[in-house]
Amino acid sequence: MAKHKRETMKKKRGKIVLASGTFDLLHLGHVKYLEEAKKAGGSNAKLIVIVARDKTVEKRKGRKPVMPEEERKALVESLKVVDEAILGRENFDISDVIDEIKPDVIAVGHDQANIEEQVRKAVVRKGLPIQVVRIGRYGKPELDSSLKIKKKVTELYKG
Amino acid sequence: MAKHKRETMKKKRGKIVLASGTFDLLHLGHVKYLEEAKKAGGSNAKLIVIVARDKTVEKRKGRKPVMPEEERKALVESLKVVDEAILGRENFDISDVIDEIKPDVIAVGHDQANIEEQVRKAVVRKGLPIQVVRIGRYGKPELDSSLKIKKKVTELYKG
Repeated sequence: MAKHKRETMKKKRGKIVLASGTFDLLHLGHVKYLEEAKKAGGSNAKLIVIVARDKTVEKRKGRKPVMPEEERKALVESLKVVDEAILGRENFDISDVIDEIKPDVIAVGHDQANIEEQVRKAVVRKGLPIQVVRIGRYGKPELDSSLKIKKKVTELYKG
Repeated sequence: MAKHKRETMKKKRGKIVLASGTFDLLHLGHVKYLEEAKKAGGSNAKLIVIVARDKTVEKRKGRKPVMPEEERKALVESLKVVDEAILGRENFDISDVIDEIKPDVIAVGHDQANIEEQVRKAVVRKGLPIQVVRIGRYGKPELDSSLKIKKKVTELYKG
Protein backbone atom coordinates (compact mmCIF):
# COMPACT_ATOMS: atom_id res chain seq x y z
CA MET A 1 0.00 0.00 0.00
CA ALA A 2 2.69 2.40 1.00
CA LYS A 3 4.63 1.36 -2.06
CA HIS A 4 1.62 1.87 -4.27
CA LYS A 5 1.14 5.36 -2.87
CA ARG A 6 4.77 6.20 -3.51
CA GLU A 7 4.45 5.06 -7.09
CA THR A 8 1.36 7.15 -7.64
CA MET A 9 3.17 10.18 -6.30
CA LYS A 10 6.10 9.48 -8.55
CA LYS A 11 3.78 9.31 -11.52
CA LYS A 12 2.42 12.71 -10.66
CA ARG A 13 5.70 14.46 -10.09
CA GLY A 14 7.25 12.96 -13.20
CA LYS A 15 10.43 10.99 -13.51
CA ILE A 16 13.84 12.43 -12.91
CA VAL A 17 16.09 11.98 -15.92
CA LEU A 18 19.82 12.40 -15.59
CA ALA A 19 22.02 13.32 -18.55
CA SER A 20 25.64 14.35 -18.64
CA GLY A 21 28.36 15.70 -20.88
CA THR A 22 30.96 18.36 -21.52
CA PHE A 23 28.85 20.55 -23.80
CA ASP A 24 31.84 22.48 -25.09
CA LEU A 25 30.73 24.60 -28.07
CA LEU A 26 27.05 23.90 -27.83
CA HIS A 27 25.45 22.47 -30.97
CA LEU A 28 22.19 20.95 -32.13
CA GLY A 29 23.41 17.41 -31.45
CA HIS A 30 23.62 18.32 -27.75
CA VAL A 31 20.09 19.73 -27.76
CA LYS A 32 18.70 16.67 -29.56
CA TYR A 33 20.42 14.37 -27.06
CA LEU A 34 18.91 16.29 -24.16
CA GLU A 35 15.46 16.34 -25.77
CA GLU A 36 15.53 12.60 -26.38
CA ALA A 37 16.78 12.06 -22.84
CA LYS A 38 13.89 14.02 -21.37
CA LYS A 39 11.43 12.22 -23.62
CA ALA A 40 12.63 8.90 -22.19
CA GLY A 41 11.23 10.05 -18.83
CA GLY A 42 7.70 10.45 -20.21
CA SER A 43 5.41 13.35 -19.47
CA ASN A 44 6.34 15.73 -16.64
CA ALA A 45 9.88 14.41 -16.61
CA LYS A 46 12.47 16.65 -15.00
CA LEU A 47 15.82 16.80 -16.75
CA ILE A 48 18.93 17.28 -14.63
CA VAL A 49 22.20 17.65 -16.51
CA ILE A 50 25.65 17.14 -15.09
CA VAL A 51 28.22 19.28 -16.84
CA ALA A 52 31.78 17.98 -16.59
CA ARG A 53 34.36 20.09 -14.77
CA ASP A 54 37.28 21.54 -16.74
CA LYS A 55 39.70 19.34 -14.82
CA THR A 56 37.69 16.19 -15.52
CA VAL A 57 37.62 17.01 -19.24
CA GLU A 58 41.34 17.68 -19.27
CA LYS A 59 42.03 14.40 -17.51
CA ARG A 60 39.79 12.40 -19.88
CA LYS A 61 40.51 14.06 -23.21
CA GLY A 62 43.98 15.45 -22.58
CA ARG A 63 42.81 18.95 -23.48
CA LYS A 64 41.04 21.74 -21.68
CA PRO A 65 37.61 22.63 -23.05
CA VAL A 66 37.32 25.90 -24.98
CA MET A 67 34.58 27.25 -22.74
CA PRO A 68 35.15 27.31 -18.98
CA GLU A 69 32.92 25.13 -16.81
CA GLU A 70 30.76 27.90 -15.39
CA GLU A 71 29.89 29.14 -18.87
CA ARG A 72 29.16 25.65 -20.16
CA LYS A 73 26.89 25.04 -17.19
CA ALA A 74 25.05 28.36 -17.59
CA LEU A 75 24.58 27.79 -21.32
CA VAL A 76 23.17 24.30 -20.78
CA GLU A 77 20.83 25.66 -18.14
CA SER A 78 19.56 28.31 -20.54
CA LEU A 79 18.07 25.61 -22.78
CA LYS A 80 14.30 25.11 -22.69
CA VAL A 81 14.64 21.36 -22.29
CA VAL A 82 16.87 21.58 -19.19
CA ASP A 83 15.38 21.91 -15.73
CA GLU A 84 18.62 22.03 -13.82
CA ALA A 85 22.31 21.92 -14.68
CA ILE A 86 24.97 21.15 -12.12
CA LEU A 87 28.72 20.89 -12.31
CA GLY A 88 30.15 17.41 -11.82
CA ARG A 89 32.68 16.54 -9.19
CA GLU A 90 36.34 16.52 -10.00
CA ASN A 91 36.50 12.87 -9.09
CA PHE A 92 33.36 11.86 -10.86
CA ASP A 93 31.75 8.77 -9.36
CA ILE A 94 28.46 7.69 -10.88
CA SER A 95 27.58 5.89 -7.68
CA ASP A 96 27.64 9.12 -5.64
CA VAL A 97 25.67 10.87 -8.35
CA ILE A 98 22.93 8.23 -8.21
CA ASP A 99 22.72 8.54 -4.42
CA GLU A 100 22.48 12.28 -4.63
CA ILE A 101 20.11 12.82 -7.54
CA LYS A 102 18.06 9.61 -7.31
CA PRO A 103 17.27 9.49 -11.03
CA ASP A 104 14.59 7.25 -12.50
CA VAL A 105 16.28 7.28 -15.87
CA ILE A 106 19.91 7.79 -16.85
CA ALA A 107 20.41 8.84 -20.47
CA VAL A 108 23.69 8.06 -22.13
CA GLY A 109 24.81 9.73 -25.36
CA HIS A 110 25.91 7.89 -28.49
CA ASP A 111 29.54 8.79 -27.78
CA GLN A 112 29.47 7.82 -24.10
CA ALA A 113 30.08 4.06 -24.28
CA ASN A 114 32.50 4.23 -21.34
CA ILE A 115 30.03 6.04 -19.18
CA GLU A 116 27.27 3.62 -20.18
CA GLU A 117 29.27 0.70 -18.87
CA GLN A 118 30.01 2.45 -15.56
CA VAL A 119 26.37 3.41 -15.20
CA ARG A 120 25.05 -0.09 -15.91
CA LYS A 121 27.47 -1.62 -13.43
CA ALA A 122 26.56 0.87 -10.72
CA VAL A 123 22.84 0.34 -11.28
CA VAL A 124 23.20 -3.44 -11.01
CA ARG A 125 25.43 -3.14 -7.94
CA LYS A 126 22.93 -0.91 -6.20
CA GLY A 127 19.96 -3.03 -7.25
CA LEU A 128 17.96 0.07 -8.06
CA PRO A 129 15.14 0.20 -10.64
CA ILE A 130 16.92 2.79 -12.75
CA GLN A 131 16.37 2.69 -16.47
CA VAL A 132 19.50 3.23 -18.54
CA VAL A 133 18.75 4.61 -21.98
CA ARG A 134 21.17 4.96 -24.85
CA ILE A 135 20.33 7.96 -27.00
CA GLY A 136 21.03 7.49 -30.71
CA ARG A 137 23.04 9.83 -32.84
CA TYR A 138 21.14 12.78 -34.18
CA GLY A 139 20.48 12.45 -37.91
CA LYS A 140 22.65 13.77 -40.63
CA PRO A 141 24.31 17.02 -39.57
CA GLU A 142 27.99 17.35 -40.17
CA LEU A 143 28.44 19.45 -37.09
CA ASP A 144 27.08 17.18 -34.41
CA SER A 145 30.27 16.92 -32.43
CA SER A 146 32.32 19.63 -30.75
CA LEU A 147 35.45 18.12 -32.24
CA LYS A 148 34.14 18.48 -35.78
CA ILE A 149 33.18 22.08 -35.05
CA LYS A 150 36.66 22.76 -33.75
CA LYS A 151 38.17 21.24 -36.87
CA LYS A 152 35.96 23.35 -39.10
CA VAL A 153 36.85 26.49 -37.15
CA THR A 154 40.52 25.66 -37.47
CA GLU A 155 40.16 25.16 -41.22
CA LEU A 156 38.27 28.38 -41.71
CA TYR A 157 40.50 30.50 -39.53
CA LYS A 158 43.94 29.11 -39.97
CA GLY A 159 46.40 31.17 -41.50
CA MET B 1 -11.55 54.77 -27.07
CA ALA B 2 -10.63 52.25 -29.72
CA LYS B 3 -7.03 53.27 -29.25
CA HIS B 4 -7.32 52.90 -25.50
CA LYS B 5 -8.73 49.41 -25.93
CA ARG B 6 -5.88 48.46 -28.25
CA GLU B 7 -3.37 49.69 -25.73
CA THR B 8 -4.98 47.71 -22.95
CA MET B 9 -4.85 44.60 -25.08
CA LYS B 10 -1.23 45.26 -25.85
CA LYS B 11 -0.51 45.54 -22.17
CA LYS B 12 -2.08 42.18 -21.58
CA ARG B 13 -0.43 40.35 -24.41
CA GLY B 14 2.96 41.82 -23.61
CA LYS B 15 5.30 43.71 -25.88
CA ILE B 16 6.99 42.16 -28.86
CA VAL B 17 10.74 42.52 -28.65
CA LEU B 18 12.87 41.98 -31.72
CA ALA B 19 16.50 40.96 -31.49
CA SER B 20 18.87 39.80 -34.21
CA GLY B 21 22.29 38.35 -34.84
CA THR B 22 24.35 35.60 -36.41
CA PHE B 23 24.67 33.43 -33.28
CA ASP B 24 27.52 31.39 -34.72
CA LEU B 25 29.02 29.27 -31.93
CA LEU B 26 26.51 30.09 -29.25
CA HIS B 27 27.94 31.53 -26.05
CA LEU B 28 26.80 33.13 -22.83
CA GLY B 29 27.16 36.64 -24.27
CA HIS B 30 24.42 35.77 -26.77
CA VAL B 31 22.13 34.48 -24.04
CA LYS B 32 22.72 37.55 -21.86
CA TYR B 33 21.99 39.84 -24.82
CA LEU B 34 18.72 38.01 -25.48
CA GLU B 35 17.75 38.03 -21.80
CA GLU B 36 18.37 41.78 -21.53
CA ALA B 37 16.48 42.31 -24.78
CA LYS B 38 13.43 40.47 -23.45
CA LYS B 39 13.65 42.33 -20.14
CA ALA B 40 13.42 45.62 -22.05
CA GLY B 41 9.91 44.56 -23.10
CA GLY B 42 8.68 44.26 -19.52
CA SER B 43 6.57 41.44 -18.17
CA ASN B 44 4.93 39.06 -20.65
CA ALA B 45 7.20 40.26 -23.41
CA LYS B 46 7.56 37.97 -26.40
CA LEU B 47 11.05 37.71 -27.85
CA ILE B 48 11.40 37.14 -31.58
CA VAL B 49 14.92 36.65 -32.87
CA ILE B 50 16.05 37.08 -36.45
CA VAL B 51 18.97 34.82 -37.27
CA ALA B 52 21.10 36.01 -40.18
CA ARG B 53 21.29 33.85 -43.30
CA ASP B 54 24.62 32.28 -44.26
CA LYS B 55 24.78 34.44 -47.39
CA THR B 56 24.12 37.61 -45.44
CA VAL B 57 26.88 36.75 -43.00
CA GLU B 58 29.28 35.98 -45.83
CA LYS B 59 28.47 39.27 -47.52
CA ARG B 60 28.92 41.29 -44.33
CA LYS B 61 31.88 39.57 -42.74
CA GLY B 62 33.57 38.07 -45.77
CA ARG B 63 33.41 34.60 -44.23
CA LYS B 64 30.81 31.90 -43.96
CA PRO B 65 29.65 31.10 -40.45
CA VAL B 66 30.84 27.81 -38.94
CA MET B 67 27.32 26.57 -38.26
CA PRO B 68 24.78 26.55 -41.10
CA GLU B 69 21.76 28.83 -40.81
CA GLU B 70 19.20 26.15 -40.02
CA GLU B 71 21.27 24.89 -37.10
CA ARG B 72 21.92 28.39 -35.78
CA LYS B 73 18.20 29.11 -35.94
CA ALA B 74 17.23 25.84 -34.22
CA LEU B 75 19.80 26.37 -31.48
CA VAL B 76 18.59 29.92 -30.79
CA GLU B 77 15.02 28.66 -30.66
CA SER B 78 15.96 26.03 -28.11
CA LEU B 79 16.82 28.75 -25.58
CA LYS B 80 14.38 29.36 -22.74
CA VAL B 81 14.40 33.11 -23.31
CA VAL B 82 13.45 32.86 -27.01
CA ASP B 83 9.81 32.61 -28.07
CA GLU B 84 10.44 32.42 -31.79
CA ALA B 85 13.45 32.40 -34.07
CA ILE B 86 13.21 33.12 -37.78
CA LEU B 87 15.78 33.26 -40.52
CA GLY B 88 16.40 36.70 -41.99
CA ARG B 89 16.05 37.49 -45.65
CA GLU B 90 19.00 37.38 -47.92
CA ASN B 91 18.55 41.03 -48.68
CA PHE B 92 17.90 42.12 -45.15
CA ASP B 93 15.83 45.29 -44.95
CA ILE B 94 14.92 46.45 -41.46
CA SER B 95 11.95 48.33 -42.87
CA ASP B 96 10.33 45.12 -44.17
CA VAL B 97 11.08 43.40 -40.89
CA ILE B 98 9.32 46.12 -38.92
CA ASP B 99 6.25 45.88 -41.18
CA GLU B 100 6.14 42.14 -40.79
CA ILE B 101 6.84 41.65 -37.10
CA LYS B 102 5.48 44.92 -35.73
CA PRO B 103 7.83 45.02 -32.75
CA ASP B 104 7.29 47.32 -29.80
CA VAL B 105 10.98 47.19 -28.91
CA ILE B 106 14.03 46.56 -31.06
CA ALA B 107 17.09 45.45 -29.12
CA VAL B 108 20.50 46.10 -30.59
CA GLY B 109 23.63 44.36 -29.35
CA HIS B 110 26.80 46.11 -28.21
CA ASP B 111 28.54 45.12 -31.44
CA GLN B 112 25.71 46.14 -33.75
CA ALA B 113 26.36 49.87 -34.17
CA ASN B 114 25.63 49.66 -37.92
CA ILE B 115 22.34 47.94 -37.37
CA GLU B 116 21.42 50.42 -34.66
CA GLU B 117 21.79 53.31 -37.10
CA GLN B 118 19.67 51.58 -39.73
CA VAL B 119 17.03 50.73 -37.15
CA ARG B 120 16.85 54.25 -35.74
CA LYS B 121 16.52 55.76 -39.21
CA ALA B 122 13.80 53.32 -40.23
CA VAL B 123 11.85 53.97 -37.02
CA VAL B 124 12.01 57.74 -37.52
CA ARG B 125 11.06 57.40 -41.20
CA LYS B 126 8.06 55.27 -40.36
CA GLY B 127 7.02 57.49 -37.46
CA LEU B 128 6.26 54.44 -35.34
CA PRO B 129 6.44 54.36 -31.52
CA ILE B 130 9.12 51.68 -31.49
CA GLN B 131 11.62 51.78 -28.68
CA VAL B 132 15.21 51.12 -29.74
CA VAL B 133 17.31 49.71 -26.93
CA ARG B 134 21.06 49.24 -26.95
CA ILE B 135 22.08 46.23 -24.88
CA GLY B 136 25.38 46.63 -23.06
CA ARG B 137 28.23 44.21 -23.19
CA TYR B 138 27.97 41.31 -20.81
CA GLY B 139 30.43 41.58 -17.95
CA LYS B 140 33.89 40.20 -17.90
CA PRO B 141 34.02 36.89 -19.75
CA GLU B 142 36.81 36.41 -22.20
CA LEU B 143 34.65 34.35 -24.49
CA ASP B 144 31.80 36.71 -25.17
CA SER B 145 32.34 36.89 -28.91
CA SER B 146 32.26 34.15 -31.50
CA LEU B 147 35.46 35.52 -33.00
CA LYS B 148 37.31 35.14 -29.72
CA ILE B 149 36.03 31.59 -29.37
CA LYS B 150 37.23 30.81 -32.89
CA LYS B 151 40.63 32.24 -32.06
CA LYS B 152 40.86 30.18 -28.90
CA VAL B 153 39.84 27.03 -30.78
CA THR B 154 42.47 27.74 -33.41
CA GLU B 155 45.13 28.21 -30.75
CA LEU B 156 44.18 25.03 -28.93
CA TYR B 157 43.86 22.88 -32.03
CA LYS B 158 46.45 24.18 -34.42
CA GLY B 159 49.10 21.90 -35.66
